[in-house]
Amino acid sequence: MIETVRNRRTIRKYLSEDIPVDLLNDLLETSFRASTMGGMQLYSVVVTRDAEMKSLLSPAHFHQPMVEEAPVVLTFCADFRRFSLWCEQRKAVPGYNNLMSFMNAAMDTLLVAQTFCTLAEEKGLGICYLGTTTYNPEMIIDALRLPELVFPVTTVTVGYPDEMPPQVDRLSREAIVHQEVYRDYTSDDIDRIYACKESLPVNKQFVVENGKETLAQVFTDVRYTQKDNEFMSENLLKVLRKQGFFL
Amino acid sequence: MIETVRNRRTIRKYLSEDIPVDLLNDLLETSFRASTMGGMQLYSVVVTRDAEMKSLLSPAHFHQPMVEEAPVVLTFCADFRRFSLWCEQRKAVPGYNNLMSFMNAAMDTLLVAQTFCTLAEEKGLGICYLGTTTYNPEMIIDALRLPELVFPVTTVTVGYPDEMPPQVDRLSREAIVHQEVYRDYTSDDIDRIYACKESLPVNKQFVVENGKETLAQVFTDVRYTQKDNEFMSENLLKVLRKQGFFL
Repeated sequence: MIETVRNRRTIRKYLSEDIPVDLLNDLLETSFRASTMGGMQLYSVVVTRDAEMKSLLSPAHFHQPMVEEAPVVLTFCADFRRFSLWCEQRKAVPGYNNLMSFMNAAMDTLLVAQTFCTLAEEKGLGICYLGTTTYNPEMIIDALRLPELVFPVTTVTVGYPDEMPPQVDRLSREAIVHQEVYRDYTSDDIDRIYACKESLPVNKQFVVENGKETLAQVFTDVRYTQKDNEFMSENLLKVLRKQGFFL
Repeated sequence: MIETVRNRRTIRKYLSEDIPVDLLNDLLETSFRASTMGGMQLYSVVVTRDAEMKSLLSPAHFHQPMVEEAPVVLTFCADFRRFSLWCEQRKAVPGYNNLMSFMNAAMDTLLVAQTFCTLAEEKGLGICYLGTTTYNPEMIIDALRLPELVFPVTTVTVGYPDEMPPQVDRLSREAIVHQEVYRDYTSDDIDRIYACKESLPVNKQFVVENGKETLAQVFTDVRYTQKDNEFMSENLLKVLRKQGFFL
């Protein structure tokens, strides 16, 4: 198992082979064994197999081809609705329309999503997370008809791999693990930590292709810009409010 | 592996036996293979083994005994600091002091935390998530000296199990998985979905012990109250701002 994780790579190309319903159900059901706040299980998973539904979801994910090409698309949603409906039906007044409750539900959701992914990879499936889910939550809410107190946190495309891409780089363990207290980074630390990433031919090529001076500029000026982040932050707040969190 | 997850339970009592440094390092390093937004690895992990540090952290976790009793306490932090320092050192202007970036980093962090937990359990270790991390982030920030753009998202206590508690209940798969679109819950659905949970002797006992009419009231009136949630939501916003997110 540890070898599966150690050798894993994100898979964006899938065989047309379907995922058996029983296998998918088993992986999902097992992933619901993940830790959950107070046993509340604050999540729902929407399974998309239908081609029309995939094309409805596609624009929300900036038309990344995995959405239409994967046999299965899973949208993992923070869900305080089911629990709140139960409370209301049992003479209890739910108080979960706030930021803290959203965070708790989002954490539950991500633990399940990641457990699912690890299990799926162990079974020979390939997965890809779509970070676009929280960029365009409103389109996904509309497509999947998510009611109040339900919010799409992340999307995973799943299928049998039709590619074996090289493993991408990771920072060294020492760059990420701190003993007892956070040891802040000196400028020498930063140079050392990012040297490997900067030296990779694929990353050097990104710099050239984007007409930038440094790899960091590719991130700040092209991929993850302040302007986009600020726009999406406003949007995220707006849609969280619309879904009934954060009142 | 799937059997490990299927049979898992949260472990709150640990043997005094230490976790070998090499094993912990291997589990952490492997968990960093989890998916990460744009390869940015927006997390840090602070390892607490020192007894004095544990007693500093303990009040933040409402003195839950696992913090002082587990051989290792791991605080998984969303971290846009390391990446932003790199940008600044490479003539790039980072724009990650906002809610969207915090969410992205928190998601990265939770994927790593959960991968670590699954791997640790596969190796015979037991884990417990502490949801208290986001209730009292300021105390943890102070204890672990977390600088700007670093935020504690979750804490996991780890050790060799010294208990074998019964497995806790989970809702049926059908209660959580939706096909193609979210199928909203009727009141009959809610009755059926929660019937098993409500019928368990341990849960019936909670109702009696807390002098309540229903199990749901134990959640809304005692464990996760609106008042607490609203207080913690305000606090979360305040501390996020203090750490430089959400400007």
